[in-house]
Amino acid sequence: MKDSDFELSVRELGEQGLLKRLQSFCPAELVGDDAAVLTTQPEKSLVVTADMLVDGVHFSDRTTSPEDAGWRAAAANLSDLAAMGATPIGITVGLGVPGDLAIAWVERLYQGLTDCLAQYNTVIVGGDVVRSPVTTVAITAFGQAPPNQLIRRATAQPDQAIVVTGVHGASRAGLELLLHPDQGGGLTSSDRAALIRAHQRPIPRLDVLPLLFPTPNTRYPKPIAGMDSSDGLADAVLQICRASGVGARIDRHQIPIPAALSNWVGAEQATKWVLYGGEDFELVLCLPTDLAMKLVDQLDQSAMIGIITAQPDVWLVDSSHTYPDERLSFEQGFQHFC
Amino acid sequence: MKDSDFELSVRELGEQGLLKRLQSFCPAELVGDDAAVLTTQPEKSLVVTADMLVDGVHFSDRTTSPEDAGWRAAAANLSDLAAMGATPIGITVGLGVPGDLAIAWVERLYQGLTDCLAQYNTVIVGGDVVRSPVTTVAITAFGQAPPNQLIRRATAQPDQAIVVTGVHGASRAGLELLLHPDQGGGLTSSDRAALIRAHQRPIPRLDVLPLLFPTPNTRYPKPIAGMDSSDGLADAVLQICRASGVGARIDRHQIPIPAALSNWVGAEQATKWVLYGGEDFELVLCLPTDLAMKLVDQLDQSAMIGIITAQPDVWLVDSSHTYPDERLSFEQGFQHFC
Repeated sequence: MKDSDFELSVRELGEQGLLKRLQSFCPAELVGDDAAVLTTQPEKSLVVTADMLVDGVHFSDRTTSPEDAGWRAAAANLSDLAAMGATPIGITVGLGVPGDLAIAWVERLYQGLTDCLAQYNTVIVGGDVVRSPVTTVAITAFGQAPPNQLIRRATAQPDQAIVVTGVHGASRAGLELLLHPDQGGGLTSSDRAALIRAHQRPIPRLDVLPLLFPTPNTRYPKPIAGMDSSDGLADAVLQICRASGVGARIDRHQIPIPAALSNWVGAEQATKWVLYGGEDFELVLCLPTDLAMKLVDQLDQSAMIGIITAQPDVWLVDSSHTYPDERLSFEQGFQHFC
Repeated sequence: MKDSDFELSVRELGEQGLLKRLQSFCPAELVGDDAAVLTTQPEKSLVVTADMLVDGVHFSDRTTSPEDAGWRAAAANLSDLAAMGATPIGITVGLGVPGDLAIAWVERLYQGLTDCLAQYNTVIVGGDVVRSPVTTVAITAFGQAPPNQLIRRATAQPDQAIVVTGVHGASRAGLELLLHPDQGGGLTSSDRAALIRAHQRPIPRLDVLPLLFPTPNTRYPKPIAGMDSSDGLADAVLQICRASGVGARIDRHQIPIPAALSNWVGAEQATKWVLYGGEDFELVLCLPTDLAMKLVDQLDQSAMIGIITAQPDVWLVDSSHTYPDERLSFEQGFQHFC
């Protein structure tokens, strides 16, 4: 980006000019036709997921720089692929922008998108740029996975261990700090920065896949079940249990929570953010206990938090006997139309 | 749709309810995970294209029913696949909707999408529904093609014939009739209906592919070049020529124009709509003359309209000597940021 472009608007640059600039974020060999051509590996399934993000609903200049909005959009979609056991091939980006939006904003959004994608050796393969009264980002991500390594929601089995690949609640805490900068006075500056970073730069857990499936031929007697925790840890466990026709017992004592979070808001509020905050983008996996233990050994901050039960309710229990058992339900979560 | 739902809004039904209803438009086996799983054929390339459509910019209740908006959105994306030589696998649909939008509108949009897709044995494989101040439809379409049957823009060669697979200008004429119903008084009711239908229900030319490539192993000494005419016939020829470093001579006398159109607005206005109107979604193909003649024989209303030249300008000539030669350029087309 040239300094002189700082105030240049979408309207001033025009469609062709903007498209040309954005093409610099795509591999040259994918640009210039009615569609992009990609090579997939034979014997792998194609895995596809789509997300739409709207200014003022899913991101806001108040809490999110354009780079962060881009990173988060890419990370959310890559997380959906990771949750299926799939490695990414590429994404398409549909972008709706008002005429008075700064070109610099759009380029910073694409920078955030490609910064995240580059971490996982993937790219923007195509897209569309149109005029819209509200800035809108529509992403479709596609990946591939060996069919016998797909992770689905509906295959959880009683007695499987439930593993989370990292801490929960940090993203929600980071959002709170961005919305209310006066909060969290007792946090160290590095704890504060870590919580904010968890919100702004979430990490899709694609790194977990090679631990679960070291080779393309790795397979287990029963498939691994799971999903990501984009809508909160409680939602993930409830969704898996409903899809699989099973229940779960989750031990709140085993759920990894950032120490800074509990110290700041207290254990009860921290647990609410852990269960219902969302956007931590960890994986919630159901697998045999021995495999679960092996995975937890290899993944910092991961934990076995409970077990799948035949009885179809989801209970939050407390092995340290401080809190009574609590039955979780979808109604307790944050109800949102998005 | 139940009659009692006629006025039910997105806000009243809520996210879960709307998602559940829209899932009825997707194959059941693709619903319920973080992403959809699809099977592709080995030895084929994956072809991906994305489009975004915004209420008031790309469609409007004034000229477009929700069913037609859905059909047109699906057709535009399938046309991009056809233009690459690819047959469709599926599409994702990202939908942004205001809370006060009628659920019936959304269901009618999806009906139009799936009506078009069903003509080509393809489906909605996933998507997202979010709140937005403006109704927005983001589509990504996936297809596959044998690598040696891909149609690209950059491979046109001097002396290849230029074929259009059907008439141009009809979509633009139909839009005019929708915007100004008092126009076209001299048209028969069936001509009027045909022009309006060309705008509301465009046909992606996937039917052309098996004529070009009767078997998966069909290949020619040199690849067929081409694209679709979604932004007008002139734009298509200019894009192909620019990408291939060649020029073209187009004979305006050979371009198929609906007779009703010329009779209504006169030859000069008709030619403008043919060249710059857009949204006819025909294919513009560059191929050896013998193959071109064979194709034109098999396709009603198709025609050889000119020839690729080594000299890199695009000329509109007139073999009937009524009009002088005219050099075409991108600047003459309708400049739009969309």
